[in-house]
Amino acid sequence: MHTRTVFFISDGTGITAETFGNAILAQFDMKPRHVRLPFIDTVDKAHQVVRQINHTGDIEGRKPIVFTTLVNMEVLAVIQEGCQGMLLDMFGTFVHPLEKELGIKSHHRVGRFSDVSKSQEYHDRIEAINFSLAHDDGQSNRDLEGADVILVGVSRSGKTPTSLYLAMQHGLKAANYPLIPEDFERRQLPPALMPHRKKLFGLTIHPERLSEIRNERRPNSRYASLENCRAEVNEAEAMMRRSGIRWLSSTTKSIEEIATTILQEVRPERLVY
Amino acid sequence: MHTRTVFFISDGTGITAETFGNAILAQFDMKPRHVRLPFIDTVDKAHQVVRQINHTGDIEGRKPIVFTTLVNMEVLAVIQEGCQGMLLDMFGTFVHPLEKELGIKSHHRVGRFSDVSKSQEYHDRIEAINFSLAHDDGQSNRDLEGADVILVGVSRSGKTPTSLYLAMQHGLKAANYPLIPEDFERRQLPPALMPHRKKLFGLTIHPERLSEIRNERRPNSRYASLENCRAEVNEAEAMMRRSGIRWLSSTTKSIEEIATTILQEVRPERLVY
Repeated sequence: MHTRTVFFISDGTGITAETFGNAILAQFDMKPRHVRLPFIDTVDKAHQVVRQINHTGDIEGRKPIVFTTLVNMEVLAVIQEGCQGMLLDMFGTFVHPLEKELGIKSHHRVGRFSDVSKSQEYHDRIEAINFSLAHDDGQSNRDLEGADVILVGVSRSGKTPTSLYLAMQHGLKAANYPLIPEDFERRQLPPALMPHRKKLFGLTIHPERLSEIRNERRPNSRYASLENCRAEVNEAEAMMRRSGIRWLSSTTKSIEEIATTILQEVRPERLVY
Repeated sequence: MHTRTVFFISDGTGITAETFGNAILAQFDMKPRHVRLPFIDTVDKAHQVVRQINHTGDIEGRKPIVFTTLVNMEVLAVIQEGCQGMLLDMFGTFVHPLEKELGIKSHHRVGRFSDVSKSQEYHDRIEAINFSLAHDDGQSNRDLEGADVILVGVSRSGKTPTSLYLAMQHGLKAANYPLIPEDFERRQLPPALMPHRKKLFGLTIHPERLSEIRNERRPNSRYASLENCRAEVNEAEAMMRRSGIRWLSSTTKSIEEIATTILQEVRPERLVY
């Protein structure tokens, strides 16, 4: 049960406020109620927000926690003046000392995403998503030379969500290609991948976890059986080792962690720009 | 040209540090060099980081800006003591006042993503990604009743990246379905969508922008011609208006902004949890 509400208030999507606020709240053993209020970009909306926060505080008998990433100073002022919650101004806190250090004023323009829709970076991200989609699960061997990375692994080892995340978050053209029983019989990588060996990155997974995941798809199948999962994972790992492919286990990692690790390995320069 | 380097230092993926740091830097008219240093989770690595920061400062003749989201206090202490950059401790700054207000200590455990890979929320997100992938571009009419939202619009109006983002970021099962010339001739929504009218959300786009995007795919085709794009967009908007479908224009919005707007419309309760 929650006993305290946390608000995330932004003049944009509120994703930054919520992502960062949640990272901080994760440091505490508590389960607050979350309320994200995006697009709070007028003084009128700010007044409504103040009423909502104070009403919540009255009902719960505790100060709501209020994370803001507001750029519009008039909107922020309304909330600063009226809000009875604990206000954590995530922008102002860092913007003011930075103004001093940099010797320039911030311009208070709204939104990390404004105008991005026409930028080259945004365009490249959308292209990367389209590429990853077209090259999901070995669907196409065309343009594999255009890939930044080609993920390989047994079915359901986490290749698809990782590829899409690499594209969406990092703008990487990430193809993925399954390793299947036929490959294990031939004891060779899929022929289409041979010319691109340097781009390969393997994902593996504990057989027990793999069996659980596959059982959700095809309950009680041979495909999902622990015995078969063990055999496939063994074969896949042996093949990756033989072929000198870098790999990691997705078992206890989130796609965010897997993606960052892969990025560090295959495109370290993307961490510096 | 950049004249100053900004470091993002984290014991986890560094995505939070970078997302938040960039949102703050976007308030300044400057183009710094970015260096993300993920997985800085030992004192040894912290010493290396200090050397790297100070070396950069020496070369550039300016204090590097250093955003940290470090939870490990020993690692943070090394950087606080040795680093000659401007240190912005994004966690400590808010964690300490929160400890006071909440009356509980933070536990300094690393990573917003730790252990998430087994959580229900994470599982639902992966399921949503798989659903959105299986229902991209009208690929499958199966289980459309399972969708949280079905995006409709002409080819290249932004449906696919928006669906995937809704799934990945918000855990929404987002299908998407194209509106094609045959639908316009019949002057009716695709028959498969009729039972799901309430879940439909339309995307439209300026014909000029659409023509640009389509020309990248199929240069000088009738499909990409401004005349054809105008006609398709007109027909699609008229159809959405007739059918009472909510819609928005993707022309100047990022997928993040489109997704948040759709979430507010179709699943406002997802903003409160």
